[in-house]
Amino acid sequence: MQSIKVKSPATLSNLCCGFDILGMALNEPYDIIELSKIDEHKIIIRHTDEFNLPTDPKHNIAGVALQSMMDALNYEGGFDIIIEKKIKPGSGIGSSAASAAGIVVAANELLGKPFNKKQLVAFAMEGELLASGSRHADNLAPCIYGGLVLIRDTSSLDIIELDTPPLFITIVHPQIEIKTSYAREILPKEVSLKSAVTQWANVAGLVSGFLKYDYQLISRSLQDVIVEPVRSKLIPGFDEVKKMGIEAGALGGGISGSGPSLFMLSENQNIAKSVESDMKLIYNHLGIDYKTYVSTVAKSGVEVI
Amino acid sequence: MQSIKVKSPATLSNLCCGFDILGMALNEPYDIIELSKIDEHKIIIRHTDEFNLPTDPKHNIAGVALQSMMDALNYEGGFDIIIEKKIKPGSGIGSSAASAAGIVVAANELLGKPFNKKQLVAFAMEGELLASGSRHADNLAPCIYGGLVLIRDTSSLDIIELDTPPLFITIVHPQIEIKTSYAREILPKEVSLKSAVTQWANVAGLVSGFLKYDYQLISRSLQDVIVEPVRSKLIPGFDEVKKMGIEAGALGGGISGSGPSLFMLSENQNIAKSVESDMKLIYNHLGIDYKTYVSTVAKSGVEVI
Repeated sequence: MQSIKVKSPATLSNLCCGFDILGMALNEPYDIIELSKIDEHKIIIRHTDEFNLPTDPKHNIAGVALQSMMDALNYEGGFDIIIEKKIKPGSGIGSSAASAAGIVVAANELLGKPFNKKQLVAFAMEGELLASGSRHADNLAPCIYGGLVLIRDTSSLDIIELDTPPLFITIVHPQIEIKTSYAREILPKEVSLKSAVTQWANVAGLVSGFLKYDYQLISRSLQDVIVEPVRSKLIPGFDEVKKMGIEAGALGGGISGSGPSLFMLSENQNIAKSVESDMKLIYNHLGIDYKTYVSTVAKSGVEVI
Repeated sequence: MQSIKVKSPATLSNLCCGFDILGMALNEPYDIIELSKIDEHKIIIRHTDEFNLPTDPKHNIAGVALQSMMDALNYEGGFDIIIEKKIKPGSGIGSSAASAAGIVVAANELLGKPFNKKQLVAFAMEGELLASGSRHADNLAPCIYGGLVLIRDTSSLDIIELDTPPLFITIVHPQIEIKTSYAREILPKEVSLKSAVTQWANVAGLVSGFLKYDYQLISRSLQDVIVEPVRSKLIPGFDEVKKMGIEAGALGGGISGSGPSLFMLSENQNIAKSVESDMKLIYNHLGIDYKTYVSTVAKSGVEVI
């Protein structure tokens, strides 16, 4: 095989109380990445989108991730890459993870699958490091594994696949900029033990709710007493989206990743669409440009097309 | 029915990372409580054990719990109670919870079951409040529901029953005194966000491990980076018990409740018994009196016998 094309999904990380440990792959939106082998030992990157991302492989997330994989293999050839990003950078739904994960999965396929999923996450993390300055796998792991995943430990990459009942995810991306690094900077360094216990009680409830297919338990557990109170202030419309979403019947929701995208989970598509209408109303009223998506959980991660 | 006898089980709370939110009912040891209706509006408490617990119902955990239930019913009769405690007070395996839970379940049976389990936990909490000065349900809820339970929220008593694979629990109770109130006092008021994330990652892993019957995941997740480092210093032999337990093949373990009892979880009885032998060696060597138990998970809580 000389050439391959993959779709690489957006991902929803944190899921309220599950800060830094939970992530979920979405069916919408996704990037398309085309990869071709070339003889020369170099990486050529071209974009067919409007985002003006760097094409120098040393400064491109996909380039860095791919290079780390090539280095591990002592690979002597090279790759020509065409990336069509549909996941807007800085949206909070795993745009950089989709680039890094998509490229390593595609290259792994082209090279006869020398690496397993966990190793691919490790290579992709090199790319993510360039984007966020820290090692996180809560977008990368679901992007590569699909479904809902728990990253129990980032340093050993202890990644656990969790089942979920059918879920519909409504996302709104208000077109404002929040830097991941800033969103991380404003977090408290210390939290009260009381809040921490509340948070891990909800984490335990949320994970149990998913595994037991208990929608009401998922709903009661979708609470974040630590990160949301700080970050939600950066996102106009946050309170309204959450309030109207829950009134429309959603199970709950909050900030997607480090924002500015917001998400609401619903039990069925009708509710998810009604939540989407409300989101549109809210941002039209605020006069802020936005994009919305209604998605299901992507059972597989990066897929060959 | 005029009279009833129940056995009320010991319970293991916290389970390392699950501080204040997880608890498990044990088949060994247990208290025996006998309750008889009397015409007079009073509570008579007698003990057939050597612990010299108060018999004034206002200062007895079982008495306070029962009184709160009688008040809720405007019950005009009274009860004569005989308690045979086999769970030593102050052991950290839910001795006070067994008294409070046992009495309210027994009375509820005698009175034709006017209350559900959740209401019984609420009455029993009145008794526990007397013992520990704070409202906690992580021993009471498993004592009444049986099995492993998650208390997602104490104020609304959101109690979730969780399944587990077969487990063997080895307990050692070194006969030293640690007051629950002191064990709580020395806890940090604030914890780093980093440690809190580590803890809730392990909580998520532990709950997933139980529900997915994944022993290795349970084992990797039985870690406590917040409470154990502080409380373990109060318990001589802690490090040795944990080290030798894991060497003997146990999945992991730590402090039971607020101590001084220690527990180790094992996949089978042979390992659990070998862990018990090691515990005996350790405390014989330290010259500290102790008791040990090897138990399974009690699938039902307080039981009529």
